[in-house]
Amino acid sequence: MTPVLIDGVTLHPEKQIFHPQGDVFHAIKSNSPGFVCFGEAYFSSTLFGETKGWKKHLRMTLNLLVPIGSVRFVCYDDRSDSPTFGVFSDVTIGVGNYQRLTVEPGIWVAFQGVGNENNLLLNVADMIHDPDEVERCELNEIIYAWNSGT
Amino acid sequence: MTPVLIDGVTLHPEKQIFHPQGDVFHAIKSNSPGFVCFGEAYFSSTLFGETKGWKKHLRMTLNLLVPIGSVRFVCYDDRSDSPTFGVFSDVTIGVGNYQRLTVEPGIWVAFQGVGNENNLLLNVADMIHDPDEVERCELNEIIYAWNSGT
Repeated sequence: MTPVLIDGVTLHPEKQIFHPQGDVFHAIKSNSPGFVCFGEAYFSSTLFGETKGWKKHLRMTLNLLVPIGSVRFVCYDDRSDSPTFGVFSDVTIGVGNYQRLTVEPGIWVAFQGVGNENNLLLNVADMIHDPDEVERCELNEIIYAWNSGT
Repeated sequence: MTPVLIDGVTLHPEKQIFHPQGDVFHAIKSNSPGFVCFGEAYFSSTLFGETKGWKKHLRMTLNLLVPIGSVRFVCYDDRSDSPTFGVFSDVTIGVGNYQRLTVEPGIWVAFQGVGNENNLLLNVADMIHDPDEVERCELNEIIYAWNSGT
């Protein structure tokens, strides 16, 4: 496990098994670090350069995998009592850097498609989608230097 | 839920939400029909025309989703006490027929890549991988008319 800058955001390497007949990529196990419980799994796709604006989950822990392409996740900590208050983390995961990104509740997340073709992410969440536990804001409401970073 | 021919094999439609910035496809929820409990999730990819030979899980229930391309799953029932003893089921799921395929333990499964490019499946299994609960046999040990069917 490589710690990322924000308290509550962690990266966990997952196994990729390459085989000429087709590859197997691990995603998450019930005894994996960062796994809380199982609520719902869903896929989200994003094209090259598209950025999906900020969301903050109040109760959901995200476990994010990218088995196709690669996706850049920028997280922002606006919790005034956090040891990493005001910090951004900027992580790109995908086929070439195959890790699981765990994001605990209370942290802002935006993401951007990095691969030239389709970029697919899987979120294995610890609760079923509930619109009342999500806060959203526009991409330009949290200023980040998207052109710098990874 | 559309019943499939074999007792213990079921299909469950899942939602696809199309959006110009990127689509969201549901996979499975903790209250979905066919969900038992969460053990492990993993991806498996298969190229066009490749067929991965027969496996029978003795304890694992599979919940299979295909968010990229399409995959043909052939199941075979050799349980002599089953109401569908000797029956094959032949189902192709994927982006164009987006359903979740649930396969209970004790049923043989083989699968084949159908889409021209990559075909990606996700298995949300109710237990962590255990090689001792899997039986395998070669593709030609269970004779099936792969050139017929869907």
